[in-house]
Amino acid sequence: MIQKVTVVGGGSWATALVKLFAECGFREAWLVHNRALSDAIQQQGHNPRYLCFAPLKMEQIDVTVDIKEALKDSGLVIFAVPSTYLETTLNKIDKDLLADKPIAVSIKGFIPGTGCTPSRFISQYINSTEASVIVIGGPCHAEEIAHQRSTFVTIGGHDNELVQYLCRRLKNDYIKAIPNGDPAGIEYAFIVKNIIGIASGIARGLQYGDNFIAVLVSNAMSETSDLIYSVNPVQRNLFHSAYFGDLLVTAYSNHSRNATLGKLVGRGISINKAIQAMEMTAEGFLASRELAAIHTQSKIKMPVINTVYRILHQHANPYHEFKLLEEQLS
Amino acid sequence: MIQKVTVVGGGSWATALVKLFAECGFREAWLVHNRALSDAIQQQGHNPRYLCFAPLKMEQIDVTVDIKEALKDSGLVIFAVPSTYLETTLNKIDKDLLADKPIAVSIKGFIPGTGCTPSRFISQYINSTEASVIVIGGPCHAEEIAHQRSTFVTIGGHDNELVQYLCRRLKNDYIKAIPNGDPAGIEYAFIVKNIIGIASGIARGLQYGDNFIAVLVSNAMSETSDLIYSVNPVQRNLFHSAYFGDLLVTAYSNHSRNATLGKLVGRGISINKAIQAMEMTAEGFLASRELAAIHTQSKIKMPVINTVYRILHQHANPYHEFKLLEEQLS
Repeated sequence: MIQKVTVVGGGSWATALVKLFAECGFREAWLVHNRALSDAIQQQGHNPRYLCFAPLKMEQIDVTVDIKEALKDSGLVIFAVPSTYLETTLNKIDKDLLADKPIAVSIKGFIPGTGCTPSRFISQYINSTEASVIVIGGPCHAEEIAHQRSTFVTIGGHDNELVQYLCRRLKNDYIKAIPNGDPAGIEYAFIVKNIIGIASGIARGLQYGDNFIAVLVSNAMSETSDLIYSVNPVQRNLFHSAYFGDLLVTAYSNHSRNATLGKLVGRGISINKAIQAMEMTAEGFLASRELAAIHTQSKIKMPVINTVYRILHQHANPYHEFKLLEEQLS
Repeated sequence: MIQKVTVVGGGSWATALVKLFAECGFREAWLVHNRALSDAIQQQGHNPRYLCFAPLKMEQIDVTVDIKEALKDSGLVIFAVPSTYLETTLNKIDKDLLADKPIAVSIKGFIPGTGCTPSRFISQYINSTEASVIVIGGPCHAEEIAHQRSTFVTIGGHDNELVQYLCRRLKNDYIKAIPNGDPAGIEYAFIVKNIIGIASGIARGLQYGDNFIAVLVSNAMSETSDLIYSVNPVQRNLFHSAYFGDLLVTAYSNHSRNATLGKLVGRGISINKAIQAMEMTAEGFLASRELAAIHTQSKIKMPVINTVYRILHQHANPYHEFKLLEEQLS
């Protein structure tokens, strides 16, 4: 029985998680990185920077910048910061404060320069096993959660009792939580799909139509499948919403920031300017570099992901790269 | 070496095929069902009813209502009529005229009341084996072919030489043809995806958002996979554009007439009125009934398809059916 949940992060997704857990009856500590934001949320009853249209059940939420206070008596600590900030965020937290607490991550990118997934990075930091960390995700744009539109969240972990408990509690008119016993697999899927989202965006920016995007996405599913099995060769149902569902929502939704970044790049805007134009982190940008580095020697064919990598990190021309890519799709 | 191709059908997809084959250098006979249409196309250089914005290379195309003339010296006869019209179309054609000619079908629905795929129906009609009929399809909305946007077409058949020949010939700036040795499998996929397209449309009509649609479509992929393997249990790559690519383009494109039908129904418009409002056949409407009949005793779980069936054919309430469906998705 978890009385209090701690959410770490002040961005769009963290805000959606805070909303979600509050509306499912949890008491929460919400740890944000500066007092101005904490004060503003307390005063206004919503996050003025992200999902500002979504009122939060403030009577259940303590917003704070005080790490000790946020973690005190917490029954679950959820890290929901962009992957680039996880290391600095963890470095501020005394490891003892995290000891013996259930930890969850809801971060869809590698830790930069490490090729490490967030759950592995955290477990190494707290000297725990990777398997002890719970992974939360699925096809869930924060914007739609804010608007209370029907959303499936996946809770992945090996602690079956905790996973089942969270799934029972995270249930209301618009939220359904699905248990999953493959946290490593879904975490990898969460990361890869952002790169596919960028690919889909670039194609749209280049004025490819629905016919081609469908070929691109179905081929990208094949790459995703190969990658996930290479990382963790266990039997799984990739049609589960946490795998292909999340890939589809990123490749096809207008809410996808990764697809938006891709669209800008496909239209001929320079990578730096496109990144500046985005107000939020497009995790797929760095993920494509990490994944290319990890799989530089691997035998897995990943034409879509490598195309994104070359365009974003090697100044390759999107038009020419997609012409070459066309020849590799089936 | 095929000199002349015959396309049978006057609709949107037949028009796109005529355009495609002409632009890839084939001479064509285009068999339409009435002289007024034939005359109009000859005079105007395009089909005034469908894709009227797309000019056709009339110097290579003979539009005709004369069956004998259309089939004379034809090296490939492509049937591209709605599934409901295939039987009456065939009944008008002397079987001898089709004897020994390569036949292709590009029809994405069952023959009503038979549970028969178009290729099986034609092969029975001409007393040939089903395996001799070529299947043409893939994720290719006619509208995008008309606008010359990059499109992958699949040529499925067991006559490898003919399939490879057609793939070599059907290639230009915007078209790429992919060979496939599983005509029965892709034909089934072509039919099932129209029902998924209706499901996606109903969800949109009911105001579900991208988060849920992604769950719906990824679960529907699983149903599609089970169905295809039940029909023809051979190894295949479902990520090939002819299978999941075609499913995606139907579930996610605004061009999809099946999704449009679903959207109207989801918004509360009666089935009959929704069908009347559509100017083109939404193949998924009848296909859902045929498939429900075929699989009434089967052990395959098809919650998405059965939901569509109950809404379209048993007057079930879309809102309640989708609430029940939510509980069956993962």
